[in-house]
Amino acid sequence: MVVKPQGFRLEASDLLDLATGSAVLGTGGGGDPYIGRLVAAGAIAAHGPVTVVPLSTLSDDDVVVLVSMSGAPTVMVEKIPSGRELDVVYRRVVEYAGREPNAVLAVEIGGINALFPVATAARVGLPLLDADGMGRAFPEFQITSFNVGGVTFGPRFVTDEKGNVLRIEGIDARWIERINRHALVAMGGSVITGLALRGQDVRRTAIAGSISLALAIGRTLRRAREEKQDWRAVLPGVCDALPLCTGKVTAVLRRTTGGFARGHADVAGMGDDAGSTVRLEFQNEHLLARRGHDAAYPEVLASTPDLIAVLETDTGTPITTEALRFGQRVTIVGIPCQPIWRTPRGLELAGPRYFGFDVDYVPLEVRAETRARAPEHHDRREESACPGI
Amino acid sequence: MVVKPQGFRLEASDLLDLATGSAVLGTGGGGDPYIGRLVAAGAIAAHGPVTVVPLSTLSDDDVVVLVSMSGAPTVMVEKIPSGRELDVVYRRVVEYAGREPNAVLAVEIGGINALFPVATAARVGLPLLDADGMGRAFPEFQITSFNVGGVTFGPRFVTDEKGNVLRIEGIDARWIERINRHALVAMGGSVITGLALRGQDVRRTAIAGSISLALAIGRTLRRAREEKQDWRAVLPGVCDALPLCTGKVTAVLRRTTGGFARGHADVAGMGDDAGSTVRLEFQNEHLLARRGHDAAYPEVLASTPDLIAVLETDTGTPITTEALRFGQRVTIVGIPCQPIWRTPRGLELAGPRYFGFDVDYVPLEVRAETRARAPEHHDRREESACPGI
Repeated sequence: MVVKPQGFRLEASDLLDLATGSAVLGTGGGGDPYIGRLVAAGAIAAHGPVTVVPLSTLSDDDVVVLVSMSGAPTVMVEKIPSGRELDVVYRRVVEYAGREPNAVLAVEIGGINALFPVATAARVGLPLLDADGMGRAFPEFQITSFNVGGVTFGPRFVTDEKGNVLRIEGIDARWIERINRHALVAMGGSVITGLALRGQDVRRTAIAGSISLALAIGRTLRRAREEKQDWRAVLPGVCDALPLCTGKVTAVLRRTTGGFARGHADVAGMGDDAGSTVRLEFQNEHLLARRGHDAAYPEVLASTPDLIAVLETDTGTPITTEALRFGQRVTIVGIPCQPIWRTPRGLELAGPRYFGFDVDYVPLEVRAETRARAPEHHDRREESACPGI
Repeated sequence: MVVKPQGFRLEASDLLDLATGSAVLGTGGGGDPYIGRLVAAGAIAAHGPVTVVPLSTLSDDDVVVLVSMSGAPTVMVEKIPSGRELDVVYRRVVEYAGREPNAVLAVEIGGINALFPVATAARVGLPLLDADGMGRAFPEFQITSFNVGGVTFGPRFVTDEKGNVLRIEGIDARWIERINRHALVAMGGSVITGLALRGQDVRRTAIAGSISLALAIGRTLRRAREEKQDWRAVLPGVCDALPLCTGKVTAVLRRTTGGFARGHADVAGMGDDAGSTVRLEFQNEHLLARRGHDAAYPEVLASTPDLIAVLETDTGTPITTEALRFGQRVTIVGIPCQPIWRTPRGLELAGPRYFGFDVDYVPLEVRAETRARAPEHHDRREESACPGI
C-alpha cells in the first residue's frame, strides 16, 4: 500500500518560526521577516491556516503558482503591499493558465518571499508546497533551480500598489529578470510578481523541504532563546551551519541602485575572533565573506552560492542586509548551499564570478577545513592583537 | 446626398515626400526618415499600396491600431526592425481587441513613426488614417491628443528584435510611458509598440490631416529642389513656417540616456543672421530655440509645443537631432503647433516648463512679431559683428 503524504497545517503560531528560519536561509535577502509575517498572519486570521504539502503530491499536469516580491529590500520595508497585489497577480496567472491552480510555491526562501506565498495560499485556499526554487534567496530571477533544470517560463505578471500591471514574456529567464528589474525601478523599486509552472516541471526541479527546514531553523533558534542556550551550539544540528566570525558591525555602505540594495558591511571580530575584520559584500543577499586587516581582505571565508547569514549574537535573530547597522553585535555563519548550485550550470548562474568577484568557488566547509589545517591565521591574529599594532 | 470621402492611394513613389515632410513635422525627432522609408517601401513592394482615409470614415465601434517605434533615435538608426516586430504587436492588439481592426494610425508624425504605420497598413491590408496623435512628434507617450481628450488606454504591447513581448496596463498614459521607457532601456534602447483605440475616441481626439500635410511639405521641398527655387520661400505656403536662423552647426552635445537622445546644438548665424548663435535644446525632439552671444542665450525664438525644424539650407533636407553634425549649413524654422497644444491642458503636458525649462510659452508667431517691432536685436547683432568684438 502506498501511503500518500498528507502534509501538515501551518498555523498563525508557526509564522514566527517560519519567518525567522526563512530570514536565515534568505542569507541577508528575501525581505524583512517582520513584514512577511504580518502579511501572512493577516491572511491566516481572515482565511484560516494553510496546508503544506510535499512535492510528491503534484501531478504532471497540475498548475503551480509562483508568487514573490521583487526589488530592493531597502524599498520593501517602506512600501508594504496591501495583499490586493497578491490577488491581482494570482488572478492573472489563473486567467493565463485557463484553470484553477493546484498549489502555491515560493520562488525563494526569505523573510518576505517564503511568507507571501503563505498569504496567497491562505487567501485563495490552496496548499503551499514544501519547496522553493533556490533553497535560499538569490537576487535575480534566472538563478532558480527551475532554470538550472531547463524549465521554459510562461509570462511573468507584475503589479504594484498603484494598480499598474505588466505581463512579461521573455525569451528566457535572464530576459524576464532584466526587463522586470528595469520595470520595477519605474514602478517604485519593488513589485509583486506571479507566474504559472507545470506540476511536472516543479516536481522535477524544485528544491524539496525548504518550508520544513525554515520552520526547523526558526524553532531551534526560538527554543535556544527560551532555554537560554547558545544558539550557535544548536543551529548546526539543523542546517550544517559553520560559525565564521563573531564581532561588531563597524561600517555599512549601502546604496539602492538599479532595483537592488548593494554594498558591503564590516564586522570587526571580538572574543576568539578579535584582531581581524570580515567584510561582507551584498547585492540584496550576502555574496562574499572575506577576512583581513587594514582594509585588505585576502582570505575568503565563504562565497555565493553557499549561504552567508548574519544573526544577532545574543538572541540568534537573523539580520537582513537592509537592517545592518553600526554597532550591532553579530555572528556570521556559513551554510552549505543545495547541491545543484555546486554543479557547473549552478556555478555559472550563481558562482562568485557571475557577480563580478575574482574568486573561485570553494565549498565553505572545504575552506574551513583548510583553515583548520593551516594555523598561520591564528598566529597572524595574535600578532595584530598586540598593543600598538 | 452625402458623399463619403474616399481617401487616396499612397504608392511607393509617394514615400520620399511623406518621409521628408514627416521629418519636418517630426521637429528633430520621430526617427530617421531613410529608415522609415525603407521599411514602408519594402512592405508596399510586397503587399501593394496603402489607402489613406480621413478620420470621418471611422465608425464609433471601429478598432484602430496605433503602431510606433519608441526609444532613443540614436539607437533606432543602428537597430532597425525587421518588420516582424510590427506583425507581433499587431497580432497582440488584434488578440486583445477580439476582432479585426478597421484602420491603422500613427501616434506621431516623424521619419519613422509616420512610415511604420504605412508598413503595417500594407502588411495587414488595412487603410491608414490621415491623422495622428500629436500633429508633430513628442518624446513621451502621454503627450498625445488622445490624452488631452481624456481617452482611456488599454494595454500597450511592446516587442523587440529578440522576441521579448511586454503587455503594459498602466493606470494612465504617464505610467504607460514611464514603465515603457524603463523597459525599453532593458530591451536595448528602442522597441516597437502597439495599442488598440476605439473609433469614437480616435474620431473625437486625433489630429486630422497629418499624413496629407506631411506629403504636401515633402512635395513642396522636393519641387523647390528640382526647380532650383529657395525652399525657404515656398515652405511657408504649406505650413506657416517661420525662418528663425540660417547658419552653421558649431557644436553638438548629445547623450543617449534614460531611453532618450538628449542634448543641445549650437547654430552660429551666417548672412543676415551673422553675429548671434542659436542654441537648440532637445530630448529626441527640439524643445527650445534660444538666441544669444557668448554662451548666454537670453532670447527665446520658439519653444515646445511649437515645432522647431532644422533643414539643410541648400537642399531643404530635414535633419533629425541624432543626425546633427558640426559644420552642417542649416536653417532653423519654427512652425506653429496644433491648437490643442496651446490650451491649458496641452501646455501642462507639453509646454516648456514640463520639460524643465524656466520659460513661459509664447506662440512663436507672437515672438516673431515682438522681435519685428523691437529692433534692438538687430542693433546688437550689428554691434557684435564689428571687428574685434
